Amino acid sequence: MPAGAAPQEQQAMNPWSAQQLSDWAASRLARVEDALSRWVGADAPVALGEAMRYAVLDGGKRLRPLLVLAASEAAAPSRSAAVDDAAVRAACAVELIHAYSLVHDDLPCMDNDVLRRGKPTVHVKFGEADALLAGDALQALAFELLVPDDAAIPAAVQARLVRLLALAAGGLGMAGGQAIDLASVGRRLNEAELREMHRLKTGALLQASVEMGAACAGELPAAAQAGLRDYGAAIGLAFQVVDDILDVVADPEALGKTVGKDAAADKPTYVSLLGLAGARASAQEQLALALAALERSGLPDTAALRALAHMVVDRDR
Amino acid sequence: MPAGAAPQEQQAMNPWSAQQLSDWAASRLARVEDALSRWVGADAPVALGEAMRYAVLDGGKRLRPLLVLAASEAAAPSRSAAVDDAAVRAACAVELIHAYSLVHDDLPCMDNDVLRRGKPTVHVKFGEADALLAGDALQALAFELLVPDDAAIPAAVQARLVRLLALAAGGLGMAGGQAIDLASVGRRLNEAELREMHRLKTGALLQASVEMGAACAGELPAAAQAGLRDYGAAIGLAFQVVDDILDVVADPEALGKTVGKDAAADKPTYVSLLGLAGARASAQEQLALALAALERSGLPDTAALRALAHMVVDRDR
Repeated sequence: MPAGAAPQEQQAMNPWSAQQLSDWAASRLARVEDALSRWVGADAPVALGEAMRYAVLDGGKRLRPLLVLAASEAAAPSRSAAVDDAAVRAACAVELIHAYSLVHDDLPCMDNDVLRRGKPTVHVKFGEADALLAGDALQALAFELLVPDDAAIPAAVQARLVRLLALAAGGLGMAGGQAIDLASVGRRLNEAELREMHRLKTGALLQASVEMGAACAGELPAAAQAGLRDYGAAIGLAFQVVDDILDVVADPEALGKTVGKDAAADKPTYVSLLGLAGARASAQEQLALALAALERSGLPDTAALRALAHMVVDRDR
Repeated sequence: MPAGAAPQEQQAMNPWSAQQLSDWAASRLARVEDALSRWVGADAPVALGEAMRYAVLDGGKRLRPLLVLAASEAAAPSRSAAVDDAAVRAACAVELIHAYSLVHDDLPCMDNDVLRRGKPTVHVKFGEADALLAGDALQALAFELLVPDDAAIPAAVQARLVRLLALAAGGLGMAGGQAIDLASVGRRLNEAELREMHRLKTGALLQASVEMGAACAGELPAAAQAGLRDYGAAIGLAFQVVDDILDVVADPEALGKTVGKDAAADKPTYVSLLGLAGARASAQEQLALALAALERSGLPDTAALRALAHMVVDRDR
């Protein structure tokens, strides 16, 4: 930290180098990747299991699992095996919901996308019917992972995790946002409408990731809960603004998916609404709000959450 | 009961007239229909909520909700408000999973069906994209209903309900059975393979309905749990055998959907495998197994479950 930086500037600085974040993420994700590999589609019949694994394994930034794990560490600095187990399960569950939404989103009746993370999309590889079923089965599996019969995770924590995830995934969350998105093609949304659409479509699950991580630790003080909730909301919005920016400026190879699609489909984006500079300013504003919310939470160790907030805004893919 | 009937014959007899069953069902379903009407798609945005309601309300025999309620009454004859609330929620949840599976099943990439319960299917009415999303949102809502924040339902019961439903809906349940079904078109399955496919595709959710009803009452003696599980498995199988029979013999107007489709698609069915008479004998055999399982359960009042078993086998639509 530069000598003489004001407290606000200290808070706004990224606490970790890219290498530190990368090391932390690698150490935390090892258990998640291992769990996903064991749990996803292992016993499902015929092509279904293969399609489920293809959709989930070996791909993605795993931002949502990292948010779950970072929030659980911030909420419960002295950890038990039960909290760790709950956090890994919650991390897998949000990733499965995210993965299923991508599979269904890519289908011909939705975005009709053929490329995802640099690979053919699930329906291109396995056919539409198995892609549809794989998405459906991934959603069910997400909830199954949250309610293990033989684990030490308290039933109240299990039920709360299911509640947070179901609300974030459903008609008043992700699926609702996608429906608004569908209905908005060719219409000119104002910023408030665009925000509401993305709050549901992308933001709800990112926010739920943070809240689920915190829920693994049991009951938190109200200030901590509110701080984490506001952090999650700001991160969710920032993520989408940056997504819209990358859709315009990114190298398609680095991004691993088709670029310029939203503009081509005449879909409203933050860039079309605010311009590129305006969108970048909006992302910085959300970053500042996210960091301020962590400050208010009163939680002692939020370094990972702060580093993830910077990553969301500074990423180039 | 005829004088001089042997105990086995007494057990095999339908305890209720059609009118008694109809009265019981009407009284029990009133709360379920009311709950569905309040909970499904009420606040979801734009066309999504409408598509969700169209898929769920005003349709169907509600067999799964009736199984949930009958099993909960058998398991907890002296009921509390919390058990009642849990049973209504579980009844709605299984019906939502069933409804979403029909919406996705009817899509062009699956069965491409245009008629369901005598009405245009959801994608015909709302378009494929909103039908896809409505199904996704209905699945999330099913889990949401099982984990209310403010109810007296114990967290352990909530978590157990989620576990039973998620397992029955996912890759080792309904979605898995649908994938086997997809892969089997044009192949000649033997009876064991056909049974396994239907055990997952239709049976798992019917069996889960019974087990979820019982779970609303909390812990049961092992004999009661095993009896209800076996009853559910037999009912699930009988249901599909009768479905296959009706696909051949029923009046399309009474059935409310296209008939003869399975044969036309060269899908394996119990009728194609066992012949019509053989399929009818198989349904009767499963009925006998279901009733025997209830006997073994040791539960005092299983009249509703017995009447439902007869209804499943004797129905004409």
